[in-house]
Amino acid sequence: MASSNLLVHLRQCFSPPSLRSYLAEFISTFLYVFTAVGSTISSRMLSPDVASGAASLVATAVAQAFGLFAAVLISADVSGGHANPAVTFAFAIGGHIGATSAVFYWVSQLLGSTFACFLLHFLSAGQEVPTTRIAVAMTGFGAAIMEGVLTFLLVYTVHVAVDPPRPAGGGKRGFAATALGALAVGLAAGACVLSAGSLTGASMNPACSFGPALVSGDFKNQAVYWAGPMIGAAVAALAHQVLACPPGAPESRHGSVEAVVV
Amino acid sequence: MASSNLLVHLRQCFSPPSLRSYLAEFISTFLYVFTAVGSTISSRMLSPDVASGAASLVATAVAQAFGLFAAVLISADVSGGHANPAVTFAFAIGGHIGATSAVFYWVSQLLGSTFACFLLHFLSAGQEVPTTRIAVAMTGFGAAIMEGVLTFLLVYTVHVAVDPPRPAGGGKRGFAATALGALAVGLAAGACVLSAGSLTGASMNPACSFGPALVSGDFKNQAVYWAGPMIGAAVAALAHQVLACPPGAPESRHGSVEAVVV
Amino acid sequence: MASSNLLVHLRQCFSPPSLRSYLAEFISTFLYVFTAVGSTISSRMLSPDVASGAASLVATAVAQAFGLFAAVLISADVSGGHANPAVTFAFAIGGHIGATSAVFYWVSQLLGSTFACFLLHFLSAGQEVPTTRIAVAMTGFGAAIMEGVLTFLLVYTVHVAVDPPRPAGGGKRGFAATALGALAVGLAAGACVLSAGSLTGASMNPACSFGPALVSGDFKNQAVYWAGPMIGAAVAALAHQVLACPPGAPESRHGSVEAVVV
Amino acid sequence: MASSNLLVHLRQCFSPPSLRSYLAEFISTFLYVFTAVGSTISSRMLSPDVASGAASLVATAVAQAFGLFAAVLISADVSGGHANPAVTFAFAIGGHIGATSAVFYWVSQLLGSTFACFLLHFLSAGQEVPTTRIAVAMTGFGAAIMEGVLTFLLVYTVHVAVDPPRPAGGGKRGFAATALGALAVGLAAGACVLSAGSLTGASMNPACSFGPALVSGDFKNQAVYWAGPMIGAAVAALAHQVLACPPGAPESRHGSVEAVVV
Repeated sequence: MASSNLLVHLRQCFSPPSLRSYLAEFISTFLYVFTAVGSTISSRMLSPDVASGAASLVATAVAQAFGLFAAVLISADVSGGHANPAVTFAFAIGGHIGATSAVFYWVSQLLGSTFACFLLHFLSAGQEVPTTRIAVAMTGFGAAIMEGVLTFLLVYTVHVAVDPPRPAGGGKRGFAATALGALAVGLAAGACVLSAGSLTGASMNPACSFGPALVSGDFKNQAVYWAGPMIGAAVAALAHQVLACPPGAPESRHGSVEAVVV
Repeated sequence: MASSNLLVHLRQCFSPPSLRSYLAEFISTFLYVFTAVGSTISSRMLSPDVASGAASLVATAVAQAFGLFAAVLISADVSGGHANPAVTFAFAIGGHIGATSAVFYWVSQLLGSTFACFLLHFLSAGQEVPTTRIAVAMTGFGAAIMEGVLTFLLVYTVHVAVDPPRPAGGGKRGFAATALGALAVGLAAGACVLSAGSLTGASMNPACSFGPALVSGDFKNQAVYWAGPMIGAAVAALAHQVLACPPGAPESRHGSVEAVVV
Repeated sequence: MASSNLLVHLRQCFSPPSLRSYLAEFISTFLYVFTAVGSTISSRMLSPDVASGAASLVATAVAQAFGLFAAVLISADVSGGHANPAVTFAFAIGGHIGATSAVFYWVSQLLGSTFACFLLHFLSAGQEVPTTRIAVAMTGFGAAIMEGVLTFLLVYTVHVAVDPPRPAGGGKRGFAATALGALAVGLAAGACVLSAGSLTGASMNPACSFGPALVSGDFKNQAVYWAGPMIGAAVAALAHQVLACPPGAPESRHGSVEAVVV
Repeated sequence: MASSNLLVHLRQCFSPPSLRSYLAEFISTFLYVFTAVGSTISSRMLSPDVASGAASLVATAVAQAFGLFAAVLISADVSGGHANPAVTFAFAIGGHIGATSAVFYWVSQLLGSTFACFLLHFLSAGQEVPTTRIAVAMTGFGAAIMEGVLTFLLVYTVHVAVDPPRPAGGGKRGFAATALGALAVGLAAGACVLSAGSLTGASMNPACSFGPALVSGDFKNQAVYWAGPMIGAAVAALAHQVLACPPGAPESRHGSVEAVVV
């Protein structure tokens, strides 16, 4: 994919399959952020007091779990189902997606997130869009490590669930395997939200932090939600390389047979 | 399916397979609306105060997610598993179901929803059947757009999950693929309910708004819950056509092999 | 299975495969009732006041959904995964299990439920075992109809999910299909609990009502929880016969191929 | 695996595949304990009062269900996906893993759990790490029996879900079967947490009790959380042997065909 000819390379980035990939990432990230941010707004409108805080945590965690499942599934066959700049970064490190494509993926994801937040802000008659926040007692450094750990767990699950990562617009996998992989990614995200939602907001996704920040105009700690997830995702890509793809086993778990099975 | 002979066409609409389809849609929509409306009644009886509002939101979202999963699954092989007039509308636009059949599907769905609401009203000793309502600060126009966005996400997921849509009473697919598609549709609906339940009630389904309105006699904003979902579903059908079925790729993801796999 | 020779028939009922079936039903029903009743006890210990009633409803519904999934799965290949006298009754009506076997299944299920309740009562240091109760405003007749409707939805889902019902100790199906069928049954039960938990307790299972009644000594309305589910299950078996197995289509969805797929 | 030559045996325990297995168990247990303990911390920070106790129970149960699903899945193909010393013990009893390997698995699991608790303690700015506790009215003996019953149900489900247990680093199974097995294990754990969370904390996993105890320095009742689960797991292994693997049926449910299916 690292074409020597820049023009050819750029033309490839604007080919119909590539454009479809960007649009799929836009829709996927829109769906995920819409459910993540919307569920926080909906819970807050119902439970203004702190008394049922745990119920709000469950609400947003389940919304993100189910929403990410759907988001990954609907774009899996078109763009690979990232819906998260950190996932795209990990796949770029692993060489499964070119650097230029990754940048276009990022732009699509950030646009999808921002559009979701704008829409929620205006349609809800001006409800404040909640940004991911750090618990009072925590430092920014600690929060970045926490986000890194959470994203490591999520992106490691992504690697196992979609092994091997397919190139944008490339080959197709059976529906059952795709759906179960997406389910694993979604539910892993839900578990992470439940475990650290009160500490850092459990973003694990720069797009999910960027959109609300842009719409609310509050970019406080934004660096935390970029550095942590990116580093965590990179470590996950390397760890998966070491653990699941040893040198002596070149073949993937999902062999060539999978293409002919539902 | 657009037979030139009206009599033949009508006879086809009352053939045993078609009648089974209508009955399956009736049962499916009954199940979905029963869980959606029933869960709201059950939550309200337990939590009359606003303090545990988020828990009630989780209750109805999980009920709709699990209920829609079951509803789509039990009718998937008989009627295609719509359980939603907006889904039927999208499939009619895509040419996967004839206009006359679509009308009979709609009637079956509205009857199923109404019967579920009547039953809940009488069996619960006169508990008021809750209608889908718009948050105080929102306009009807904004609510319609919100319902349209939510239904777009749901119906787009439906298209990916059941690709290609099968005609009523037609060919059968492997059970695993059918079940996982139904699961994706159900959980996507649950995510949408969590994200906008406090804003518009997250109906995404005209039948789900019509039944409670008829039983409670409160048709306020009914147009919102028809216009929004129908337009959102139509846009989803077109977007899926563009994104997932490019002109140069005539074959579906689930090829002819799927018929022989569980 | 209706052997003319009584001795041969009885010997078959005590053959090793049959005894394994009874033990599997015992463990399955034990697991389901343990989660259903235990979750109510655990919720009540945490939330003695009514304020977080919806959260308790979610707790018991999710416990029953996940627990029934596991219960059906672990006994699916041994006994067919009933874990519910009403399901056994429906399969007996459909001719998928003999009348004598059904009686032994019932005894195993009631013993499993009773043992689960006794264990919870003693291990929790005398916590009162909660029985399924009818909401104050409802009549016993209305409650029986409600239980019948809920059980109809559950047992209809069971029929679709395990189509065709396998005889006790008989042929085996692929693991993916079995697991997804069990998941559908479990989540359908969860949806039903959320929709009618405040009205009748949403038992849908005579064993689930009998065990707590025996341990707590409170058999009030016990007839409601036997008549409703049994009638609902019988109607579901007939409806599935009409809808999914039309006379002209003798073959099942899961053909002979399923035996060779995971 | 019981090599007569000690040196050869030890060398095998430090071969690259074995080391990868230990690392996979470390990551798996880290993920599971991180979600189990983190969700309790996050819930407690949001709901300091007892009023929304049931919501906290749901939060930690869902976190453990989703987290264990991911934990089992990500290590299934490398180490077998135990993430629990009791599961390793059961597989050692059944002869599916050697005694020496089992000890290394245990060490990896305990290290993973301890690292997760340390990280949560420091990153959350000193939040107290919650240990599994016994309800006031219960005795240690009763709690051990309760933990044994819960672990029996969990480990029995594990045996059905991964039948046949694969040796460390050994053969690979289709992704769909692996994922659905992991889902069953995760959701069964969630059901158990909901049913006994208020009584014993529903650990079912010595690693999950050891890590918090070490970090908080509170080893009270630690023996309960080792004896109960180990005995329950052993009984489950024997019961599964009797019920699902009768002498006359040497072949496993997942025959040789499964290797070629996704």
